[in-house]
This record gives sequence, structure tokens and C-alpha cells, in this order.
Amino acid sequence: MERGDLCRSKDFPALKNDTFLKAAWGEVTDYVPVWCMRQAGRYLPEFRETRATQDFFTTCRTPAICCELTLQPLRRFPLDAAIIFSDILVIPQALGMEVTMVPGKGPTFPDPLNEPADLEKLNENVDVNQKLAYVFQAITLTRHKLNGDVPLIGFSGAPWTLMAYMIEGGGSNTMSKAKRWLYQHPLVCHKLLKILTNVIINYLVGQVAAGAQALQVFESHAGHLGYEQFREFSLPYLREIAQQVKEKLKASAINQVPMIVFAKDAHYALEDISDSGYEVVGLDWTIQPKIAREKTGRKVTLQGNMDPCALYAPKDKISEIVKKMIEEFGTQRYIANLGHGMYPDMDPEHVATFVESVHMYSQEKRKNE
Amino acid sequence: MERGDLCRSKDFPALKNDTFLKAAWGEVTDYVPVWCMRQAGRYLPEFRETRATQDFFTTCRTPAICCELTLQPLRRFPLDAAIIFSDILVIPQALGMEVTMVPGKGPTFPDPLNEPADLEKLNENVDVNQKLAYVFQAITLTRHKLNGDVPLIGFSGAPWTLMAYMIEGGGSNTMSKAKRWLYQHPLVCHKLLKILTNVIINYLVGQVAAGAQALQVFESHAGHLGYEQFREFSLPYLREIAQQVKEKLKASAINQVPMIVFAKDAHYALEDISDSGYEVVGLDWTIQPKIAREKTGRKVTLQGNMDPCALYAPKDKISEIVKKMIEEFGTQRYIANLGHGMYPDMDPEHVATFVESVHMYSQEKRKNE
Repeated sequence: MERGDLCRSKDFPALKNDTFLKAAWGEVTDYVPVWCMRQAGRYLPEFRETRATQDFFTTCRTPAICCELTLQPLRRFPLDAAIIFSDILVIPQALGMEVTMVPGKGPTFPDPLNEPADLEKLNENVDVNQKLAYVFQAITLTRHKLNGDVPLIGFSGAPWTLMAYMIEGGGSNTMSKAKRWLYQHPLVCHKLLKILTNVIINYLVGQVAAGAQALQVFESHAGHLGYEQFREFSLPYLREIAQQVKEKLKASAINQVPMIVFAKDAHYALEDISDSGYEVVGLDWTIQPKIAREKTGRKVTLQGNMDPCALYAPKDKISEIVKKMIEEFGTQRYIANLGHGMYPDMDPEHVATFVESVHMYSQEKRKNE
Repeated sequence: MERGDLCRSKDFPALKNDTFLKAAWGEVTDYVPVWCMRQAGRYLPEFRETRATQDFFTTCRTPAICCELTLQPLRRFPLDAAIIFSDILVIPQALGMEVTMVPGKGPTFPDPLNEPADLEKLNENVDVNQKLAYVFQAITLTRHKLNGDVPLIGFSGAPWTLMAYMIEGGGSNTMSKAKRWLYQHPLVCHKLLKILTNVIINYLVGQVAAGAQALQVFESHAGHLGYEQFREFSLPYLREIAQQVKEKLKASAINQVPMIVFAKDAHYALEDISDSGYEVVGLDWTIQPKIAREKTGRKVTLQGNMDPCALYAPKDKISEIVKKMIEEFGTQRYIANLGHGMYPDMDPEHVATFVESVHMYSQEKRKNE
């Protein structure tokens, strides 16, 4: 097929390695599947070379390049899943906000939400099939190019995380502007979170329609909330996303896909998160495996959670850390990953050690079970 | 006495309000004492005015100004403790490192520790009585000027937190440079942490000798460590600080003072922290009171933990949050505080509501006990 067709045709190659999907659904697997958050990233020289030609969000809007970046880590490592190269801030962009990537500073909103009246600026009835078609095309193209080797994960930022960016105008150590809104304008916040939730639901359903075989929702800023605020401003929307995505897929006669929720630093709400409608709960590295299993029962598959900085360790140390992690999580209902995204100064060879160690130790342990 | 004498004489006025100290020692109190981390701060117009005349670290080195800044919040609010105005980075400075405060950016080390060999640059046998005399003078002066109204808290950064600053060269979202050291150069890290521990011990003992009536150790970067790394690179040094400070005070026939440890975001190690030799454990706002009491038993007094951003809420909402907090922590073995330092854009009147609510609700609850 021509590239144009590959961005549209849904006649995808058959899946060869379904270990990640089986683990996500809670089925028995022969070994622990593994992927890395931000596995398509600057730590790969080929990523830097491909990315160098244009600015970040232009890259996000170019399906062929998103596809290439998504595939790069798969060519190096025997990963069990791919994740589409994109960014969580494409949703604020679709809502009409300008977001630029400032080198050395990160994503920046020149005109963030400064006051409640600014919600009027948002194009809340956005048609994701029009505004975010480029992501769907990238997913469809990548599904073809993956040739069925491993499943393709789609993703979105969660409402609170996106809201925080839209108010802060970029990264923040404290998120104090966004949190000020939570305390001073709770009703406006719920309105904004609801707008985001609706767009996210349509966006995720569109990703599955385009070919995504699993979905991850990133509540990256959960750690700035405490338990009460998480229960009020994050959890209900996370629940609604899981529920509505499943209902809409059913209504459209599209096969269900497993959904992953990753609420970073939300140690205080693990029980609630494991009961919020997602098949998989992602864990940051501050959560001990044993405690995570206790709090989540065996209702969900767990995903994570090696400290990304452990990739700086010598290879034998990485291997040792992986071994311990697999012993503690066990080989079933478990997807190995890092506890957060990778950093640009990491060594690809150490990623190889991480991936290989997960496969080796989990196969070994599985044999003795 | 003249100011010069007030910086030396240890003949202090008698303490009138010992509620904070009683709570810290685990004694019965009539109400819950309260203070705020960063209560001497930019949210006060008089602070901004006093600070405007010179740069940040020059202020830290000027006892009369540190004293004035320490007293300012006491003039406005019926706080139960004062904390000396200073900065945790005076220790890296005493070790010979340059640290400047860059407006809008925060503390910056023009020449951070880039590699293990850089440890040789440190003046590890620093005489704190010479290099940090200005802090001790500020404490002594402030003890006099407080006139016994409330106790004066001294403080220090903890070794890992200071080490992270010294390697990162300032703030960081990931602390990935410092964590790289932990994984690649563990022995060098232990050497550096030991150097810092020794200086911190002498520094804290010196603060008590100068008049500090309680001590708080800030492990502000604990959240970047997981459980294993905390147990290896933070906890042993926290323990050693508590133990050695107490031994050295005893050896010098100086009265013991209660010690507070505040390991921010160290939810994963609350049990260990509550068993590390400190009388008081500070909590960030992500820890639920009930869980904190369960994990720490009643071995320690708890301190905290209202979300600082709750000070953005309307006054009646602040009052409601405080009421719930006191109901959950109880009135005994408890010191009310925020779960982190205050921010510059907070309203002093809301701090007043916080402080008054703590007193009012705890007195009320105490009467019914």
C-alpha cells in the first residue's frame, strides 16, 4: 500500500507477540512483558537526528515522522509494546491554546488560562477527528509499519494534569497557580475538567478506531494533590474516562482494549485507583511492589516501576534491580516498565540490559513456578 | 544590653509559652500549638521591605536582619514557635562552595560538584563556630528579642538534600544528576554524605548552644529517592544526626532540645522515620493523618500537614479544613503546620485564619475530651 492508504486502511497485519496484551487483560503469560515510558526519546541518537529537522509540535503533526520515532526503539530492543510518539499537550492545542516547545525550558503556553473567564476562549466542542486527525493517521500508519510485531499503545494526559499545564503555562515545581483555582474556583475547575474529560474520551476512542491496541492515561501531576483533592478533582474524571471509552467502543462495535492509568506520586489513593475501571495501574518508583499488591488486591495488572535513574547504574546492578523487582511483583498480572519516563542522557545499552533482564529473570522464575 | 552583648549573652528571658515544646516532647497540652514552614517569608509586605535592601545571602549573614525577619510573623499572628530566618544552603557555602540567589530562578551554584574528584574542593574540616558564627549570633540575638514569648527553632538541611543541591547546582525536577551519582558512585556519595553529616551535627549543636530551643532537619528531596535508596543514602545519616546531636549536647552539659525530621514525600518510609531518633515527624500534605498515626504508632509527635495551597481558599474553607485536620490528628502529640513552606503570593489574613482556627478548634475539642 502507499503511505496515504497506510494512514487510512484498518486491514492490519496479524499480531505476533501478544504478551503485553495478555498481561494487561490479566491472562497468564510465559514471561513478563516490558516497555519503557518515553522509550522513543532523545536518549537515542537516531531520535535526535530525526527530530533535528523541525520543531517539536510540527513533528507531532507529521504522521510519517511520529511513526518513524515510534519504531526506533523497537529496532534496538525486544520490547513487548510500542507507544505512539506524540505529546499530552495536543489536547490543549486542539482546544485552541497555543503551546510551543522551548528548548531547555519545555512546553510553554504564551497565553495560559489566567482567570476563570478565560475558559470562554476554549473551543470546547472540538471535533477531534478533524483537529487531532494527525495523531489518528500516525497510529494507523504505525500499526501497519509495526507489521504485527508488538501491540501499539495510544495515550492521553488526564484532565487535572492538562488543566494544571493550561493554568501554569508550563512546568511548575508547586502547581500553585492551578491549585489556587482548585481552592478558589472549584465549580469552574469542574467545568474545565469536564470539558477536558469529554475531549479525552473522544480522543481515546478515536485512537482505538485508528488502531491503538491499548491506552494509557497519564495523571502526571497527581502528586501535587492530596487525597481529598484527588478524590474530588482527579478520580471522578479518571473513572468517567474509563467507563465512557469502553461504552463508546461497544456502541461503535469496536473491540475493547486494555486501559492503563498512571497517576504519578498518588501513593495515597492506590486503592481507589485500582478500582477506577482500568485494567492496569502504573506505579512510580516510590511504591514498593508488595504494598502495591496489598492495596490493589489482584484486581488489576500492575505496571512499573524501576527508578528511571537506575538506568545510570552499571549493567550488573541494573540486572540485580530487575531481578528483585520481578521477585517482588511476580511474573503474572505484571508489565515491567520504569517508574517514570526516560531522560535524554541515558545510555541505550543500559536500556537493552533492562529489557533483556526482565525477559530472562521472568522466564527463569516462571519455569520454577 | 547592647546588640553586641545580645549576640553573645546566654542569659535569656524566661519562656512564657511552652505549648510547642510540650507537644514536641509528647507532654499533654491544652491546645494544639501551631507554626508555619516559611512563616518568615515574602508573603509579608514587611519582609519584602526589609529584604529589599540587600541580596539574599548577605541577609542571611546579617544577624540583626535575620532577627527582624524571624520576629515579623510573630507580631501578626499568635504563633507558638519562631524559626530562625536562614537558609539550608549556608552549609555548602561553609564547605567552600559559592551559592547565589538568582531572582526568579532560586539558589544557584556557579560551580557545582560535577565529578567525584570535585569533593577535594570541599573544606571538609570546616569550623562551624567560625564559618557559621553569623547564624549562631542571629539565634542568640533573636532569643533575647523574642523576650520569651515563644520558643525558637533552629534548622539544617539533611545530607542527601544538600548533596543533591551541590551536584545539581540548583533546583531540579528530577534530581537526575545527583541520582546518577547514587547509582554510579555510591562510595563517593557515602563519603560526601558523611562529610555533610559531620558538619550538620556540629552546626545543630552550635545552634542549641546559641539558644535554639528545638531543631528541624529538612530532607526536602526525600521524594526523589525510593525506599531502597532512602534506606541507604538518607536514613542512616538522619539517624546519626539525631543520635550525635543528643550525645554532644549531653557531653557539653547543654539541655536537650526536641528534634523534628521533615522528609518531604517520604510516604514510603514513615515507619523507619518515626523510629530514627527524632521526637517529631513532619508530614507533607499527601499523608493522611490516620495513616500517619497508624504507621508511627504514638512513638512520636506528628507535625503538619495542611496543603499550603489551602491558604488560597476562602477563610471559612480554611477553617473547615483545619477542623477536619484536628479531628483526624487529635489534640495530643500534635503540632499543626503546613505540609510545605508558604508561597510569596499568599494572603497574611489567611494565615491568621489558619492559626486562629487551630487554636480555636483544638481548645474546643480538648474541652470535650
